[in-house]
Amino acid sequence: MSVRDRLGIHTITLKNWSLAETCAGLSGAGVPAITLWRDAIEPVGVDTAKKLVEDSGLRITSLCRGGFFPALDEAGRQAAIDENKACIDEAAAVGAPAIVLVCGAVPGQSLQESRKQITEGIAAVLPHAKENGVKLSIEPLHPLYAADRSAVTTMSQAREMCEQLNSEGETNVGIAADVYHIWFDDKLEEEIMASGQKGWLHAFHICDWKAEQSDPLQDRGLMGEGVIDIREIEGWMSNAGYQGDVEVEIFSQHHWKKDPAIFLQEILVATDACI
Amino acid sequence: MSVRDRLGIHTITLKNWSLAETCAGLSGAGVPAITLWRDAIEPVGVDTAKKLVEDSGLRITSLCRGGFFPALDEAGRQAAIDENKACIDEAAAVGAPAIVLVCGAVPGQSLQESRKQITEGIAAVLPHAKENGVKLSIEPLHPLYAADRSAVTTMSQAREMCEQLNSEGETNVGIAADVYHIWFDDKLEEEIMASGQKGWLHAFHICDWKAEQSDPLQDRGLMGEGVIDIREIEGWMSNAGYQGDVEVEIFSQHHWKKDPAIFLQEILVATDACI
Repeated sequence: MSVRDRLGIHTITLKNWSLAETCAGLSGAGVPAITLWRDAIEPVGVDTAKKLVEDSGLRITSLCRGGFFPALDEAGRQAAIDENKACIDEAAAVGAPAIVLVCGAVPGQSLQESRKQITEGIAAVLPHAKENGVKLSIEPLHPLYAADRSAVTTMSQAREMCEQLNSEGETNVGIAADVYHIWFDDKLEEEIMASGQKGWLHAFHICDWKAEQSDPLQDRGLMGEGVIDIREIEGWMSNAGYQGDVEVEIFSQHHWKKDPAIFLQEILVATDACI
Repeated sequence: MSVRDRLGIHTITLKNWSLAETCAGLSGAGVPAITLWRDAIEPVGVDTAKKLVEDSGLRITSLCRGGFFPALDEAGRQAAIDENKACIDEAAAVGAPAIVLVCGAVPGQSLQESRKQITEGIAAVLPHAKENGVKLSIEPLHPLYAADRSAVTTMSQAREMCEQLNSEGETNVGIAADVYHIWFDDKLEEEIMASGQKGWLHAFHICDWKAEQSDPLQDRGLMGEGVIDIREIEGWMSNAGYQGDVEVEIFSQHHWKKDPAIFLQEILVATDACI
């Protein structure tokens, strides 16, 4: 199967397009899948968003994003649980089979404590997710974001949470593996295999890590512009049994300056070249 | 022993001072140790630098920096070996007992291959270092710098290199542990202990990781401005037998705008508060 048959694009990658424009653009370019960010749904509402996606023949890979479970007090943690339940409702309503979790971290609180709160937070919303047929995908983030975005910085930590949260044989809690966040991990191949054998590889995000970056958040590279051996990592995912979508998620002030139609064409060329 | 008795400051931390000014400033403030960056020695030459430091009664902790061993071709790797031998000569001449190694990485070359070349490069210069009584201190860098500055991103990788490069009981190759690069590592306590038991903890660098950073290289925080629990990590270093200097190494366009005398006083206050 060609990677084009598994290709998905995050709405944020083409953020200067409305959801209607993105659906039309992807459909017209033969891209089969889309990952919806909540901010792309918000202007039109869930029902219209669902109809736009359905009418364009796209499949929804995931909803981005839930998470941010840790907080310094109980009220903050409860608010996060409520918000994640609302996110699950939105996923179910729009027809997204999974939610990507950017798990959260709190400056001044140890990462260990934050990981404990993340595990408890996911456990608190998991029954609601199961009732709604929505899977939860933990995304380990680069340690660059450990202070305030994710205390989960490794595939190993994410896998440990899957161990704790899933009952035997279940895959409701899994992992969104994004090459940007994990490419340097010297245990990556074995971690992918260990999670894949359990069915916990929910998602695979691609982009590139540029050696020189002008911004720590919004200067990700298009595949081929950086140092990541995406082909090798994709091979490890395949060997571990992953057959899901390959999602292009790029935050880039540089690329966002272009006409999204042009950037989309560049993404297609880059995807063909990198996998 | 008070941390003030073990305090060292990197010349780059007070980079707007000349070496003579830094020596006078540290000596006047009762700071006992200095880590020399090669760019601080260069304007005056090694002999004058040595005399300036000696006359001010400071002890030299390390010379910064050697390393950058990997290269795409044999000539590049040989040039790095030659440069590191020259750095060892400079350390011996100025009276620095150790060199901090920023080990290097090459965009487009796998980190595994770069680590192999780093190990080979250190092995190639180690006899010269031993003859000159200079120790070599591998500094694991944050994965933020994995693309082009250091393929060594974890204490574990550095320890593995120490295992390979030292003969039984030797400590000529060790580790410079900098909180900025390793604070998020979930194996940090056990890694510090494992290296400490072998006598491989050569150096301890402190600063802070700000949750929001304006620059990936030069926006480090003064201790207390960020999220790192320095007291906890210092405790782990002490438990592992580390009794060496506590070195303040801060790259900061923000703090560099100040009068270095003011910044030095802030460093003293922040050091007392963080350990």
